[in-house]
Amino acid sequence: MTHSLDGTLALVPAGPHRWTGACGRAYWNMVGPFGGTTAATLLQAVLVHPDLLGAPTALTVNYAAALTDAPFTIEARPVRTNRSTQHWMLTMLQADADGQEQVVTTATAVTAVRRATWGGTDMPMPSVPPPAGLPPVGALPGIAWSQRYELRPVAGVLPAAWDGAEGPDSLSRVWMRDAPPRPLDFCALAALCDMFYPRVWRRRALRVPAGTVSMTVYFHADAELLAATGDGFLLGQAQGQEFRNGFFDQSAQVWNEAGRLLATSHQIVYYKE
Amino acid sequence: MTHSLDGTLALVPAGPHRWTGACGRAYWNMVGPFGGTTAATLLQAVLVHPDLLGAPTALTVNYAAALTDAPFTIEARPVRTNRSTQHWMLTMLQADADGQEQVVTTATAVTAVRRATWGGTDMPMPSVPPPAGLPPVGALPGIAWSQRYELRPVAGVLPAAWDGAEGPDSLSRVWMRDAPPRPLDFCALAALCDMFYPRVWRRRALRVPAGTVSMTVYFHADAELLAATGDGFLLGQAQGQEFRNGFFDQSAQVWNEAGRLLATSHQIVYYKE
Repeated sequence: MTHSLDGTLALVPAGPHRWTGACGRAYWNMVGPFGGTTAATLLQAVLVHPDLLGAPTALTVNYAAALTDAPFTIEARPVRTNRSTQHWMLTMLQADADGQEQVVTTATAVTAVRRATWGGTDMPMPSVPPPAGLPPVGALPGIAWSQRYELRPVAGVLPAAWDGAEGPDSLSRVWMRDAPPRPLDFCALAALCDMFYPRVWRRRALRVPAGTVSMTVYFHADAELLAATGDGFLLGQAQGQEFRNGFFDQSAQVWNEAGRLLATSHQIVYYKE
Repeated sequence: MTHSLDGTLALVPAGPHRWTGACGRAYWNMVGPFGGTTAATLLQAVLVHPDLLGAPTALTVNYAAALTDAPFTIEARPVRTNRSTQHWMLTMLQADADGQEQVVTTATAVTAVRRATWGGTDMPMPSVPPPAGLPPVGALPGIAWSQRYELRPVAGVLPAAWDGAEGPDSLSRVWMRDAPPRPLDFCALAALCDMFYPRVWRRRALRVPAGTVSMTVYFHADAELLAATGDGFLLGQAQGQEFRNGFFDQSAQVWNEAGRLLATSHQIVYYKE
């Protein structure tokens, strides 16, 4: 049986540098698909491209307009290929009401052939209880994508009441994995980087309208580390930095249960009021 | 007299969505221009575009190939314009040895009309001594761009000896501004976000080859806050997160002297060995 993530990421070749797909409703959010799977779909176009060099190192996705569940086209072009790095520009297009193709998402990616070097971290995994002893949260009513992940929060859950009681910070930590479990790959990891609800909700205890405008993912894991991680839980951590005049940014880290930092991610998010 | 930054950022219209320029040698690094001014030049193409909506909110620049001091072309296209946000795709092109235009840099940008909302911060400025009491560092011999900034380090200076003595972290804090002083604008702020030497040098006390591959800047300041900041010092802070297999990422924050967070920035950097 096909995992819902693989169904969502399926692309059909449509000429040089072009693919078509449709996101379906498996990862539907309130008014469109989960932004994490949109990012993963763009990355997928890079990964299935016949000219691909290396593995994902950086991905930036800009959410230009609301995506619908109608078919879309992705253009993915390697615009510069060096000896060990490759630079990509991508657009996701969808027909508007008049049948004209319009840009709904843009992206850039860097892929690279990576070699073993000295390594280290300045961001060790925080000390938290293991996932096995923590209860999973239930899916959010009416939010399809929340059924596609198993989340075991450690800290910084959704406010218990939307009472406007301003909190001291916007830090969340959560154990997370695909549901049903699925061996981790680059696309699934990119989607998981967008798992964190808008930090402004936590700071303000107000569910103001909010949506990601741009997200960047830096991949520190290679295929071998992803394979070693398998379908185990990942610890995700997210915190906002600055909230001002309709936009805030949040930064995130994703470790595997063995404490290896697999990806770091950043996003800037629109909010209202 | 034209400030060296304005000379470097000068663009000449060359048809719809196209500009030409040449970076000159005022901000020359060892083998090419300072990446900060390259980012600023791409942003400048957005800012001078006749179709611009709003002010910079997000900028991602991907350094695909070494830029020379020969003329370049920038293509800057608004690919999606909404009611209050606009999405941009950019490429910087330069002729190769055979006279063929090649992509040397790619970028995406988001501009937005911003309105007053609730605001807050999760990243207050650290408590540090004011710049007036700290000595400026001298320019680095042979590095032109280091003469274009006044830097007053607070913590995390370049290692005193390149002896491979691994340090505990890669945090740096530095007061910084253009030299000679210049009223802050979005382009200057974008360049200042790239002020931090490679974090791997600090962690390892080894000057291994290193270069930024992709940088993202989120702008929290609006034109009014930039004007209030004027030509005063900014406090920059940078720290690495993960160093592995030839790439590491570093995150940065830039406050004005009054403690307002003007921009946050992230980059992924190639390193050798």
